[in-house]
Amino acid sequence: FFSSRMKHDPPASSSANAPPQPAAKAKKKKGPKEGPPPPAAQKDLWKTKLCNNWQHGSCHWGPQCSFAHGEKELRHADRQAELDPEQSPNARMWLPPGADAAAQQRDFASDFDPNFIVPGRVANKSAELVHAVNDFHFAMVNDFDRNEFYRTAMRQVITPESKVLEIGTGSGLLAMTAARLGCKWVIAVEANRHMAALARENIKLNNLSDKITVLSKLSTELEPEDLPDKPDVLISELFGTLLLGESALDYIHDCRTRVLAPRAKIVPPLGCQMATLIECKQLESITSVTEWGGLDLRHLNALQDTATVVFTKQYGFRFSTVPHTMVAPPVRILEVDFEKADPAEMQSEGRFEIMAEHTGIVHAVLLTWEAFGHDKCASMSTHPSESSFQRDMQWGQALQLIEDTQAGDGSQPVPFRVTKGEPLLLIVRYAEDRVVLQFELRRRAPQNATTQPGLGAAT
Amino acid sequence: FFSSRMKHDPPASSSANAPPQPAAKAKKKKGPKEGPPPPAAQKDLWKTKLCNNWQHGSCHWGPQCSFAHGEKELRHADRQAELDPEQSPNARMWLPPGADAAAQQRDFASDFDPNFIVPGRVANKSAELVHAVNDFHFAMVNDFDRNEFYRTAMRQVITPESKVLEIGTGSGLLAMTAARLGCKWVIAVEANRHMAALARENIKLNNLSDKITVLSKLSTELEPEDLPDKPDVLISELFGTLLLGESALDYIHDCRTRVLAPRAKIVPPLGCQMATLIECKQLESITSVTEWGGLDLRHLNALQDTATVVFTKQYGFRFSTVPHTMVAPPVRILEVDFEKADPAEMQSEGRFEIMAEHTGIVHAVLLTWEAFGHDKCASMSTHPSESSFQRDMQWGQALQLIEDTQAGDGSQPVPFRVTKGEPLLLIVRYAEDRVVLQFELRRRAPQNATTQPGLGAAT
Repeated sequence: FFSSRMKHDPPASSSANAPPQPAAKAKKKKGPKEGPPPPAAQKDLWKTKLCNNWQHGSCHWGPQCSFAHGEKELRHADRQAELDPEQSPNARMWLPPGADAAAQQRDFASDFDPNFIVPGRVANKSAELVHAVNDFHFAMVNDFDRNEFYRTAMRQVITPESKVLEIGTGSGLLAMTAARLGCKWVIAVEANRHMAALARENIKLNNLSDKITVLSKLSTELEPEDLPDKPDVLISELFGTLLLGESALDYIHDCRTRVLAPRAKIVPPLGCQMATLIECKQLESITSVTEWGGLDLRHLNALQDTATVVFTKQYGFRFSTVPHTMVAPPVRILEVDFEKADPAEMQSEGRFEIMAEHTGIVHAVLLTWEAFGHDKCASMSTHPSESSFQRDMQWGQALQLIEDTQAGDGSQPVPFRVTKGEPLLLIVRYAEDRVVLQFELRRRAPQNATTQPGLGAAT
Repeated sequence: FFSSRMKHDPPASSSANAPPQPAAKAKKKKGPKEGPPPPAAQKDLWKTKLCNNWQHGSCHWGPQCSFAHGEKELRHADRQAELDPEQSPNARMWLPPGADAAAQQRDFASDFDPNFIVPGRVANKSAELVHAVNDFHFAMVNDFDRNEFYRTAMRQVITPESKVLEIGTGSGLLAMTAARLGCKWVIAVEANRHMAALARENIKLNNLSDKITVLSKLSTELEPEDLPDKPDVLISELFGTLLLGESALDYIHDCRTRVLAPRAKIVPPLGCQMATLIECKQLESITSVTEWGGLDLRHLNALQDTATVVFTKQYGFRFSTVPHTMVAPPVRILEVDFEKADPAEMQSEGRFEIMAEHTGIVHAVLLTWEAFGHDKCASMSTHPSESSFQRDMQWGQALQLIEDTQAGDGSQPVPFRVTKGEPLLLIVRYAEDRVVLQFELRRRAPQNATTQPGLGAAT
């Protein structure tokens, strides 16, 4: 049952079955382009040669690589496509890995050298799906506290009359949990047809096929006629390392406005994105240099990146395994009521007055989130003190390094030293998609320091 | 000194200074293409739309994404370039991040939303360089045991008459260490001009400018006239998570055959790639499922990836933080004498007879490497028991999940259970580049079990 890539032919259906087009346009606004185009010299050469490093299996710059990762990425040097935003209704939304609607799917087996062996059970599955399942899906399903949070939160709203819609069912776990709690029916949507088939197998194995119907499509493709009635409970777990990193609000808002019953319950109903200033000497040891062996190496610090939000999964360590101190209490930079919020109303910037409760260096902003059930007691958090190995392997946390932008001559980043009681201003800016974000930390004049310690108040 | 991307213009020199072309062809062999082309339907759509997930900052499938990551990656749907291998002399070699020779460089600032702020000191540097330095370079320089290994290994060969060449000097640390040990001179090559400038600043700061000359080029571009004389000592640290992941042997062999003195000393002279069968329940908990809450979820296991070598940095945890057991002693799958080896003579496959010393489940093959000085006592290892936080953040280890390919019906991966004393065969296969690799574990018939426990003998 093993086949090497040389022997592998894609299934005949892959070109015969044209991928479905999204039936519903969740967002129609015509956003501006993402900044100026690159200089012509760069643009013309982009992805016109194979990446040597990728061929060696260790390309450090990943998605941003200017070389082609595989022959399929190779582009002709003098052509450049322009996207019409009207043709990409979901252009700003995260798409689940392996979504059939993505069209450009390739088989997992195509990632391997002809000399290698690929198990037949995965060879013809979407490469994106297989990589994503192995990157975080197994860990997610084994995050038992996550599962228990959902069971508790669902128990608070599900009755024997509940008509439940789940978006992004994956293995079928949450749909089956809802069915076991005793609802009327569950419709579970899953964007990849192979994953949908596996969910149906799990559901059959657990004798729940009479309660649960799996539809193989994106939730934005759902039409009222796909459903026996308007669902009055929506379940979803569309959270990334950032609360809105997988466009949870966009997908839920789309369901709310198009297919759910009025006043439908959303599980979970509330989410909160937190930002915490932290001191962490161990983080400093992998993000800056001083000296070694009597050699002063400080000029390398000119390349320190204080602009990017980096996931702990990208660094490669669990944040709970390194000692760190909170310099100020966590700030709630975003509170989302999934039963009411409209993504179109999200702000492009937030400003929060805080006060240092610890004398030291602010090395970074730590980003975590928390989701709540309707009773506000049941909760699930990505904070390092509450996360587990499995949770860290699916989500982890995000970090942005902080420098003192008001000090120094700009040739080197200056550490942001604070003293206990010092008033600070934390600014968060959102990209056009209102998901990607960036922080800036400033000092405030003492006379403006009216905020109570412990409260991160929006100004 | 901060500029947002909207205000940022690339330096005037970026298009005026055409990137240098490699002067030397390190490898001229015309290799076969990497397997069959994708089906036309997939090929035609590759990278023709923007990736929604990438725009949200959380694309899980990274370099393999079939969507364009940024407008610059967008390609026209019906054109496909073909590379002439003769025009890509180094097509099989890893290129250092931000190498000027790569030509398709873009500025770091171009990665950010117009609403974001990018420090002026990094805004116009190569994005690849900045991302790589922040991903592993700071950690590497702060791996003091690594630095000490190099100082010890260099001390064994450097004399006051030594003429030293370093390839890939980065911050200049190893070149300065060689100079401090008292050699005649050091020529240090560095592929990125901004990094070369920073190395020169560090060297000046440490009053070593009279001993060290930094050349801004790839070592494969070195010409004899670049050097005052033939170097008799070559220093380099071109190791990846895999020993040969950054083409160390290719680069060193190129220097040996073109620019070094006969019988020049290579530091380090020896490297060894190790593979160890391990049992690790915690790894199992993020790579497979059983059940939760009375729900059997086993069908998801059909997507378990037992074909890919995955770095612990990609999973997002330090392997030393999870309990694990060696099922058999480490196997030396590759020993490289950098003073003698020829990359053209590397084998495409290795077979090793081993014997289980532990009854349990083989969850994975753990890949680590070790490098040695000329006295064979000084050594540096990526093994979890010898690695530090800083070393794990630059290298970490690699893992490939193992299944019992000789059991089951192929619909699900079957755990590879072994009993103490059981004879096994570990097969390693190399891709065309002889760097990317893949393992297969088989059982051997007992009558062939002549290998002593503790020795991984090549068959």
